[in-house]
Amino acid sequence: MTADTITAADMRINARWLIPIEPSGVVLEHQAVIIQGSRIVAVLPVAQADREFRTRETINLPHHVVMPGLINMHGHAAMSLFRGMADDLPLMTWLNDHIWPAEGRFVSEQFIIDGTQLAMAEMLRTGTTTFSDMYFFPEIVAQLAHDTGMRAQICFPLLDFPTAWGSGPDDYLNKGEALINEWKDNTYIMPAIGPHAPYTVSDEPLSRAAALSKKTGARIQIHLHETEFEVTEAKEKHGERPIERLAKLGVLGAKTQCVHMTQVSDSDITLLADSGAHVIHCPESNLKLASGLCPVHKLLENGVNLAIGTDGAASNNDLDLFGEIQTAAMVAKVVANEATALSAHQALQVATINGAKALGREHELGSLVAGKLADIIAIDLSDPFIQPVYDPASHLVYSNHGRAVSHSWIGGVPQVQDGKLTRIDVPDLMLRVKDWAEKIREQQAV
Amino acid sequence: MTADTITAADMRINARWLIPIEPSGVVLEHQAVIIQGSRIVAVLPVAQADREFRTRETINLPHHVVMPGLINMHGHAAMSLFRGMADDLPLMTWLNDHIWPAEGRFVSEQFIIDGTQLAMAEMLRTGTTTFSDMYFFPEIVAQLAHDTGMRAQICFPLLDFPTAWGSGPDDYLNKGEALINEWKDNTYIMPAIGPHAPYTVSDEPLSRAAALSKKTGARIQIHLHETEFEVTEAKEKHGERPIERLAKLGVLGAKTQCVHMTQVSDSDITLLADSGAHVIHCPESNLKLASGLCPVHKLLENGVNLAIGTDGAASNNDLDLFGEIQTAAMVAKVVANEATALSAHQALQVATINGAKALGREHELGSLVAGKLADIIAIDLSDPFIQPVYDPASHLVYSNHGRAVSHSWIGGVPQVQDGKLTRIDVPDLMLRVKDWAEKIREQQAV
Repeated sequence: MTADTITAADMRINARWLIPIEPSGVVLEHQAVIIQGSRIVAVLPVAQADREFRTRETINLPHHVVMPGLINMHGHAAMSLFRGMADDLPLMTWLNDHIWPAEGRFVSEQFIIDGTQLAMAEMLRTGTTTFSDMYFFPEIVAQLAHDTGMRAQICFPLLDFPTAWGSGPDDYLNKGEALINEWKDNTYIMPAIGPHAPYTVSDEPLSRAAALSKKTGARIQIHLHETEFEVTEAKEKHGERPIERLAKLGVLGAKTQCVHMTQVSDSDITLLADSGAHVIHCPESNLKLASGLCPVHKLLENGVNLAIGTDGAASNNDLDLFGEIQTAAMVAKVVANEATALSAHQALQVATINGAKALGREHELGSLVAGKLADIIAIDLSDPFIQPVYDPASHLVYSNHGRAVSHSWIGGVPQVQDGKLTRIDVPDLMLRVKDWAEKIREQQAV
Repeated sequence: MTADTITAADMRINARWLIPIEPSGVVLEHQAVIIQGSRIVAVLPVAQADREFRTRETINLPHHVVMPGLINMHGHAAMSLFRGMADDLPLMTWLNDHIWPAEGRFVSEQFIIDGTQLAMAEMLRTGTTTFSDMYFFPEIVAQLAHDTGMRAQICFPLLDFPTAWGSGPDDYLNKGEALINEWKDNTYIMPAIGPHAPYTVSDEPLSRAAALSKKTGARIQIHLHETEFEVTEAKEKHGERPIERLAKLGVLGAKTQCVHMTQVSDSDITLLADSGAHVIHCPESNLKLASGLCPVHKLLENGVNLAIGTDGAASNNDLDLFGEIQTAAMVAKVVANEATALSAHQALQVATINGAKALGREHELGSLVAGKLADIIAIDLSDPFIQPVYDPASHLVYSNHGRAVSHSWIGGVPQVQDGKLTRIDVPDLMLRVKDWAEKIREQQAV
């Protein structure tokens, strides 16, 4: 071999184990990932990498699994400032008596900045590289995610009633369209349409959301069939299930992400499968609010694309997607009455490539394949208290927690190094969080 | 105040927050725990402690919750060496094709020593101070726990068939009675009778187990109603539900711990409540093996004492009891269809005082009360990625993981200091675990 067959590149990551996600169900050993700019150039055995590449930087991860960054497909980032404020309550009590009043009092631009940074810090620390957000002041969240270098789907809120961010459907849709136009070709920011739920948005704004999606290509994310009450009430009011109403209004399609779906009939599955709509599973929120159980195994068996989200930290109460996939994998089995349901490898796919599919970016996110964006995380499996390791995929899902994430890169840019965040000033953030907590605590005491 | 009103004591722990468990549902702030020898002398506000006590040692825990050590009421410690060896399989396949063959090949005295130490290390690191074990060579486990200074209920196995530890029921019961006699008045070791399950133990040995319990006062722990199949098969074979059979044989009483109980009829609840038997809930094992869902809320409402266990790391796949109570609290809500079910405070009680009740040691374990044994843990809540903290009880259950445990004492003896184990040589243990893992991996590859 002569020198001219050696390719130069920016960075090389040497991994003890590598789970590429594509091909699926595979754990490779002693692999190198070669990165040039923001992209993966090659994934290949270490010995071969030694012969074929010369890089400016080499990161050795001798006790680590390297895999694509996690994609957290549903949340309300800034609500992290309300984490654990009100627990052990049913969804409507929690919303009516605690969350909505607190939002009314506190949500402002500065609240959004500080709460979103808190959420991004926790997500980065625990392995998420792309998140979806649905909350007020989406322009601010978009700018923050962009400036931090995180990928984010930013769903602007759409509701029948006024909020801190806008006066009603017209205002939301106008501001939302501006948001879409501003960010539509950005590699980090994916603007999207976020009608809150069938019970908070009327037919007309829902139809306009569908039209806006068609016009701009923006995705739609909506809370759907979260509780039995939602479905029962809708049937009384509209004479049909919420998902049927969405289908009639043109809202259900291959660009639609249906969040929660704990109530799923066979005809719902047909609607989902035929339309190509995606389901975003939020198991911990569904359990904690006693909302219900999503039939994960049945959806996957019927070819519905299932991704996963943590929901907001106010309902969950954390944004650790590794914890979420553990819960998902365990609960899916008992719901399916089948211990083979949602295997460890499937759970990892749900949190990576399936999220990429829901975003329509599976050609460049969600797996470690040459040509894709270098959104990569490493998890240190050397912790003595999780030994022995027979199958790293099993450990990631069943014995792991997000704090074991040691490294993270988004588009080749380091975000976490040896467990430390590189792009968020955590001590400064903590001062701002402390101020908010004191204000919120005072109000609660009233 | 004069000097002679000041009491001398060994140690003082100053805690930012303290959850005493008794009284229930309370979070106290800025408290001191005073320890003399192996016992708690007082729990009182810091300012009062300054006036009333002088101690040789003071531990300041300014960002921590202090609470009683956790009680892990069911496990098979040495099986930690099989962690993650076989996942995503139904209970009987997992047992027949993986676990039982591996046990046949590997279980020996040295396996028990190394596997049990691995489990104790993980349990100590994550906040458990008392555990229950049901596995082969119980004499070795008892000695190890004793020498490490952990409290342990050691259930000797009782089965119809021979194992590495004995030739059959006579042999098990003889060896078991000797174990009981050896340890019966020890503060650390609680010898107990461990008939494996109704489907692996015949009437005669079950009756003899009941008689041995009556004679010696030893508790009985048995896997019961773990799966629907177990109940259905028993009804075909014996014409009754397994718990009814146990009641007839005299096995069900106030000293009996029924592990799993995913299949619970109203008449089962009556039997449990009337007999005073305890239920040991193992939610993650029940989910992961698709065994079923224990009706936690209904059992508690009907006055049944419910404690919690991780089960073995081979089925779970970790021994982090904080993770287990999070799962328990979340799943209980959806099973009860009520978000108020198993609140954060209740979940903490299940893992402390309820375990103590199941062991018959609620007078000296399970809460931070003057006179009780000083089995105490501290959890550091300063992690930036779980801020803000409005309610430490909420954080312990819904946003926490066992790695946040910073300190642990058992009978006043330090076991964990700043996250480091004091009484187990972890690097040496890791060498032995590595050896076992290599052997087991080789056999799996065959």
